[in-house]
Amino acid sequence: MSLLVVGSVALDSIFTPFGETADALGGSAVYFSVAASLLHPVRVVGVVGSDYPVEALEALAPRGIDWSGVERATGESFRWKGKYSYDLQSRETLETRLGVFAAFQPKLPAGWRDAKYVFLGNIDPVLQLNVLEQMSGPRLVVCDTMNYWIKGQKPDLLKLLERVDILLVNDSEARELSGDWNIHRAGRWILGRGPKRVVVKQGEYGALLIEPERTFYVPAFPLEEVFDPTGAGDAFAGGFMGYLARVDSTAPAQLRRAMVYGAAMGGFAVQGFGVKGFDTVDYDQVQQRVEAFVDLTHVPAAEPLT
Amino acid sequence: MSLLVVGSVALDSIFTPFGETADALGGSAVYFSVAASLLHPVRVVGVVGSDYPVEALEALAPRGIDWSGVERATGESFRWKGKYSYDLQSRETLETRLGVFAAFQPKLPAGWRDAKYVFLGNIDPVLQLNVLEQMSGPRLVVCDTMNYWIKGQKPDLLKLLERVDILLVNDSEARELSGDWNIHRAGRWILGRGPKRVVVKQGEYGALLIEPERTFYVPAFPLEEVFDPTGAGDAFAGGFMGYLARVDSTAPAQLRRAMVYGAAMGGFAVQGFGVKGFDTVDYDQVQQRVEAFVDLTHVPAAEPLT
Repeated sequence: MSLLVVGSVALDSIFTPFGETADALGGSAVYFSVAASLLHPVRVVGVVGSDYPVEALEALAPRGIDWSGVERATGESFRWKGKYSYDLQSRETLETRLGVFAAFQPKLPAGWRDAKYVFLGNIDPVLQLNVLEQMSGPRLVVCDTMNYWIKGQKPDLLKLLERVDILLVNDSEARELSGDWNIHRAGRWILGRGPKRVVVKQGEYGALLIEPERTFYVPAFPLEEVFDPTGAGDAFAGGFMGYLARVDSTAPAQLRRAMVYGAAMGGFAVQGFGVKGFDTVDYDQVQQRVEAFVDLTHVPAAEPLT
Repeated sequence: MSLLVVGSVALDSIFTPFGETADALGGSAVYFSVAASLLHPVRVVGVVGSDYPVEALEALAPRGIDWSGVERATGESFRWKGKYSYDLQSRETLETRLGVFAAFQPKLPAGWRDAKYVFLGNIDPVLQLNVLEQMSGPRLVVCDTMNYWIKGQKPDLLKLLERVDILLVNDSEARELSGDWNIHRAGRWILGRGPKRVVVKQGEYGALLIEPERTFYVPAFPLEEVFDPTGAGDAFAGGFMGYLARVDSTAPAQLRRAMVYGAAMGGFAVQGFGVKGFDTVDYDQVQQRVEAFVDLTHVPAAEPLT
């Protein structure tokens, strides 16, 4: 029942109206793993530079995160600097320094090639495909991407999609990929390209699981305090995949429940800076929040008229 | 179990990327009534000018809409002209001519003063309050408003809120009224001003029912074709109130179901120009859509791990 993620391990400097961080742990693989490890052990493939505070990663290992697939390369680590608007609705990238990430060539440790659940974080689709070629028949391949690859490497991305079970993207990415602004038509377009399902994240509005004959909707958790939206999408992916690996199933009912675990993790992510939102979260709290989600959309049965 | 709406009866000229209408039936009371009447008879209080095609209103009467509270004044009818962006996400008001609506003084026919379910459509809060003063203890008062009144007549609006059971507004109105961009804090602020509940409409993302201790979320219906968003919010209100009047209850479980009926009607509204989206809708189709909504957010119970 192994769970594998390939993605970025970065240092984020984030400015929000509520504070700022400098060179904090970040990157898709980090957010994913911190969330997923609340549900199932995770193995991480990535790269860091010689300046990375690897002891901070190791401090997270006892949660069930195996960082031994993270290569230590000579050079600078991937750094991202961003600033959010006053209402956290938009953000501006102030600086992106790829560093050693620019030459990243994911290599799966030998014992990891038979992972059953794989999340391909947002990296070059050629590398995502390369990861799949190193694997021996995973049960579920879920993949993220971004507008940069959609614009610059669409043929590679479309080739990758043929081998992906679920594409997990945000709404603007689904729109750009399909060329259709209607999110449901965009989802259907993507289903025609290979994936059996599409998860469309809509930020503070929740997320959709679009299947050929059916759609599932999970809202975002109602939060009166949001500190930092960074990583919410990757934490969502971590909750989604962590749950599926835990129950070792891809049954339709479990995929719906996985969406709720994803939404729960997305909520925890935004409640603190960087991965700090997870500092005090344990499995019981995850379960409590999942139950709260079920209540949030529960439609009581019709009562007979008296 | 009578249901009353007070609001505008207008002529809309709408431009969307998919077509246009000129002087079509519109206004909050019209959208409300067309939706609500699928569930329960409605009585309408409003005003039209001497140029209004009253025969078009009368053609809708057999659905269960009693227009006898709509005054026919001398002068021009209320006209609105608007244009939507290519993705229907924003609209520009090209022209607003209030006509006889500017001097509207709602007068309830004598037999209508004991209505149990009242929707105060978006008009001057002084007039909304005046309507309540003509009534003999309604069971449920639901009220809409807009940024224009929030800016210009906040003291009147706050006075009205003390007598309202549910404020039903869109997210930008909730934000502007409360001065808080966080929609959940905004809802709580409003709850402190009188209403026992707040319904926050979020357009294509659905709607929230915010209660002091609990929140309910209903998504918008997933539609691959949207033609005209005009009136979706008033149709939502019509479904919400029509259902409550039908089951003659304000029980918490029924309020949740009412939200789903509201969302169903909002979906029908956007599927055609003006009120045309309702032309072929009958009660069975409403029920089918409500069942589809229940499936849309249904979270299957956890299965025991094997």
